[in-house]
This record gives sequence, structure tokens and C-alpha cells, in this order.
Amino acid sequence: MSGEKPQFRAVILAGGSGERFWPLSTPERPKQFLRVFGGESLIRQAVSRLKGIARAKDVFVVTSAKLATATRRELSELPAANVVGEPDRRDTAAAVALGVGAAAPAAAKGDPVVGFFPSDQMVTAPERFRDVVRRAAAVAARSQAVVVVGIRPSCPSTSFGYINPKTGAFFEKPSERRARAYLKQGYLWNAGMFIARASVFRKLFAKHAPDLCVLADGVPVPAALRRVYAALPRISFDFAVMEKAERIRVVPGDFGWDDVGSYGAFDRYFPHDRRGNVREGPCTVVDSEGNICVARSARISLLGVKNLVVVTTPDSVLVADKSRVAEMKRLFSR
Amino acid sequence: MSGEKPQFRAVILAGGSGERFWPLSTPERPKQFLRVFGGESLIRQAVSRLKGIARAKDVFVVTSAKLATATRRELSELPAANVVGEPDRRDTAAAVALGVGAAAPAAAKGDPVVGFFPSDQMVTAPERFRDVVRRAAAVAARSQAVVVVGIRPSCPSTSFGYINPKTGAFFEKPSERRARAYLKQGYLWNAGMFIARASVFRKLFAKHAPDLCVLADGVPVPAALRRVYAALPRISFDFAVMEKAERIRVVPGDFGWDDVGSYGAFDRYFPHDRRGNVREGPCTVVDSEGNICVARSARISLLGVKNLVVVTTPDSVLVADKSRVAEMKRLFSR
Repeated sequence: MSGEKPQFRAVILAGGSGERFWPLSTPERPKQFLRVFGGESLIRQAVSRLKGIARAKDVFVVTSAKLATATRRELSELPAANVVGEPDRRDTAAAVALGVGAAAPAAAKGDPVVGFFPSDQMVTAPERFRDVVRRAAAVAARSQAVVVVGIRPSCPSTSFGYINPKTGAFFEKPSERRARAYLKQGYLWNAGMFIARASVFRKLFAKHAPDLCVLADGVPVPAALRRVYAALPRISFDFAVMEKAERIRVVPGDFGWDDVGSYGAFDRYFPHDRRGNVREGPCTVVDSEGNICVARSARISLLGVKNLVVVTTPDSVLVADKSRVAEMKRLFSR
Repeated sequence: MSGEKPQFRAVILAGGSGERFWPLSTPERPKQFLRVFGGESLIRQAVSRLKGIARAKDVFVVTSAKLATATRRELSELPAANVVGEPDRRDTAAAVALGVGAAAPAAAKGDPVVGFFPSDQMVTAPERFRDVVRRAAAVAARSQAVVVVGIRPSCPSTSFGYINPKTGAFFEKPSERRARAYLKQGYLWNAGMFIARASVFRKLFAKHAPDLCVLADGVPVPAALRRVYAALPRISFDFAVMEKAERIRVVPGDFGWDDVGSYGAFDRYFPHDRRGNVREGPCTVVDSEGNICVARSARISLLGVKNLVVVTTPDSVLVADKSRVAEMKRLFSR
């Protein structure tokens, strides 16, 4: 980086709804609070891995108003005011605007670089992660571009958006066939990490989503915030802004990233018995294979079953075919 | 029945170990206490259906010493002394001898007819049941035979012993192929109901299992009972006595009998949704079929699964393939 050292602010987006790891996670305690992967909750890990590139006072969280108190408690090292609660769910465009407004209000001095990070992912090589973020922040500091961290794909996943590292063009979650083509072309996964000068974000909102400028300028007082949100459409930042942005730069990253998107993650992070079962908590397993078994209250006993996800909590017992966990939402829409 | 009216005493054998309906039933609360089938526990139903053929004071129960108190509480209409606790499990030969000793001690006057009945079965036509028992008791009263109630088979079951109604010959649980042959020959199911004069039982024990005579003569005092039991082998009444008995008469019965032997019984006694699921308690079922779902504590949610038995209690969650419930014991032998 040449000359002046840029200010760096990090915003963690924590709008998870708790469905994909239900019943371990719930709307009141969504995925970012899960302590299953590593000893700390995922949101704590998200903050911890920023150490060395952002001080606690420069880390912000945008979450739902309902979760703000629990989030402040979980992240007690952050100033309470750095955790901003959204009065309603309005998808990521509003959350990003609010994050810019919280981390770098228009009225404040300077034009910090603001980086956005998800709250519910795993990174197994945090030092490499920080190197990539530093590099991306440096690019953002000396340009008018939004810098996107692109993850090198390990498989033709249909669960992520893709990004062309040369043009910065965004592509939505593809079919498996299309995903294979993307891999051949060298496209990267869009993992929801992007970095730009605050002024760049504000200009993009002004051009593509002017409704959101009021948020990007600074966090309104609560009554005004509720009024603004009530009038907003539900729209993602990728769709509202990024797909229309002209200057996008991609910094590739390879730091053991995992979105921990579904119970399949248990198969990646936990040891298996010799018949391929993952067991967490008290489980008796007879003549059963390929199951993910998480006992958080009552003991689980499996007899003669295959490829199930079985999870017990004091309130709920989930029994799902492993190949169907992406459809978890169907359990709630009835 | 000619001349003198015979005394009739009924003995209910309640030695169940609680494994086949685990975790609804447990060793401390075995199958005969289940209230799932009909509003009353199975053992209460066993006593109730004897009304009209045996007065409460003439109904006896042989159970394990550990369950004696719970059994007296459940069957409060019986005199407490009529519930006899076995100090150890020694299979049915000892239990029958003890039942004869309790219901018709050698020192007492007369030679009553004693009928033995299981504690954990369903009878949907109790009036027909009583007619059959009356007929069997009448045959027993005027003969030196053991009269066995033979159930007309509804399928070539491999779960029951069979009996040749002409010769009284007993056959152990057969292979399916052999079971089909038995059905063609008109053999009946041995449902564990048999009736004879007390003196007939005593003579059979004297000849084939002399160790048990001391029990068949009368219930020893507790210390003596423990001593006797400690020395007894584990052997069934069918094997020790019935297969060697010379005079066996068979009275066929058809009174909606069901042994409620496993979770399969839920498929017979509960309504199904249109995808063949049985649901008891709070269950959410999405794209799943042929499951038996019994929620006794936490809500069960099924997603994309087939032919499972899923049962929740506060302590345990069972997830078993429906075709494997006969192997339930394997969950405990580890």
C-alpha cells in the first residue's frame, strides 16, 4: 500500500434464520451461535479471525433486532453500539447499506475501507484468510472497485453463486451441469465477502438502490429505522447492486473455507466410525451406516438404518434422509 | 358340566422384560403396563376380560419381585397377596409352578381348575374369549388333561409356537416355510393359555420337573422362595412339561386375539395417514411414508424417510427400520 495507511472496518452480516441446522439452531438461536464446529460459536470465530486486521472497535455486526442482545452478549469484546439490529428482514441489500452507515457514517472523517463477512462460515487457515483480506483491502484502498474474495472451488457445487475472476461478472447458483462448465472456465465461488471504500458503496447505492442511501449515510434513530425498513423491498445485495456494478475486482482466496451450509458439514468435520456414522453425544448404533447422529438431550438408538440425519434437542427430534436436508424449510411451511 | 360346579382360578403370567416396545416400555415398566393399546394397560385388560368367569379373589398374578408393588397398584381390585413376586427370572416353568402353588395350594380343600393367561395380549372379542375359556375349563374339570386354547392362525407367523389340535403335539416357532405347512394341516397358534386341575399340574411337575413341586404345593416364605429360585434352571413350561405331557386337549378359539408382540402392532391398531404413516403425539411428516411415529416427549419431524419406527420418550429416541424391530434386543446387549 502506498502512502497513507487506509482505515479498515469490518462488518459481519448475521441475518441467519436458523433453518438449515434446525433443531440445533432455531430462529431464536440461529446457525451463527452454533458451537458445534470448533469450540466457539461460528460468529465468535468470525470475529476472532479478523484479529490483526481490525481492532474490536472497528468490527460491526448487522443482525436482526431480536438477536441484537444475544449477539452483544456473545461478542462482549465489541462496543455494544457496534451491533446494529434490523427491525425487519429485508435481505442483504439493506443489511449492507446499514453496515456501511454503521461502520463509516458519511458525516465522519475519512473514507475507510469497509469489508463485509458472513457470520456463519468456517475457515481452517485463518492466517491465509487474513493475508487475502489484507490484499483485497489494499486493492480496494487504491481503487474505485468493489473487491470480491473468490474461493477456489473444490467441487461443482450448486449451493453457491460463482464469479468470473477476470471480468468480475456474477452468476447465480447454477445447475450441476453449468457448475461443471464454470469450474472448467476457472470461475470462483462467491462466498459473500466483499470490500470497498465507504464512498464506493455509497455511490453504488445512489446509482442502483437510492432507497438505501439513507441507511448507507448513517444509522437512523430507532423510530426512523423502523419507518425506513417498513418501506423497503426484500432484495439481495448481489442482485440489487453487484450484478450492475461496473468496477469489480476479484482476489482469489484459498484458506480452508467452508460455508457449513447443512448437516453435510458434520461429515466433513467429525470423525466417522467404521460404518461411516458420525456420533455426537450419547448414541447407540446397531447395524446402521452413514448416519449423522447428534444427541443433545435424549440418547439416540439406531437399529438397521442408513444415511439418516437424527438430531435430538429437548424440544424436537429430527429424522431426515441425508440427501434431503436442503429441503428442511418444508418442515416449517406447514 | 355335570354335577358339582368346579372352582376356577386364573393366573396371569406377567414376566415381561420390556424390550420389544422399548423405549415406551422398559425393564421397570414392561409391556403389560403399556396404555397404548386401548385406554387401559394390557395387564388391566387381561384381568378385566376374566370378569364373569373368575372373581377378583380368584385371580392371581406371577410377576418379578421388582414389579410386584407396581402390579398391585395397577390391579388394586385384587387382594395384595394374590400378586406373587419371583425373586429371579427362571422362565415360565417356575412361574407356572408358583402360580399353581399360589392359586391352589396342596394343603387347601378341593381341586380347583387353574387357567394360565398372558398379561400382555389384546383380545378384541372378550365375550367370545370368555365362552372359549368356560368351555376349556369345563373340559379340564372332567378330565386329567391339560387343555390348551389354540388360536386360529390368520397368517403363517414365525413368531408363535403351533399345536396340532388333534394330537395336542407342540411345535416350536417354525420357519416361514414350515409355518405354511402347519397352516395347511390345520395347526393352531399356541398363545400361552392352558387350563387344568391343580392336581393335574402337580402330577406333571412330579413326573417331568420334580424340582418345581415345592412351588406347586404352595408359595414358600420369602427366604425359602429365594433359596429355591437360586437353584432352578431357566426353562420354559412348554419345554419342561407340555412337550412331554401325554394328555393334552385343544380347544380352538377365535376371539380377535393379538399378541401385540412388536411395533408392528401399531400398524394394526392405529389409523394411517394417506401415505401410510401412523402418528401418535406431535409429529410433523414431510414426504415420508410407512413410518410409525410415537412422540411421548419432544415433537418428531420426519423428512424424506420410509418405513421407520421413530419413538421419543424423555430419556430415549429410537430410530429403527420397521423390518428390524424384532432385533431390538441388540440395542441392549452392548
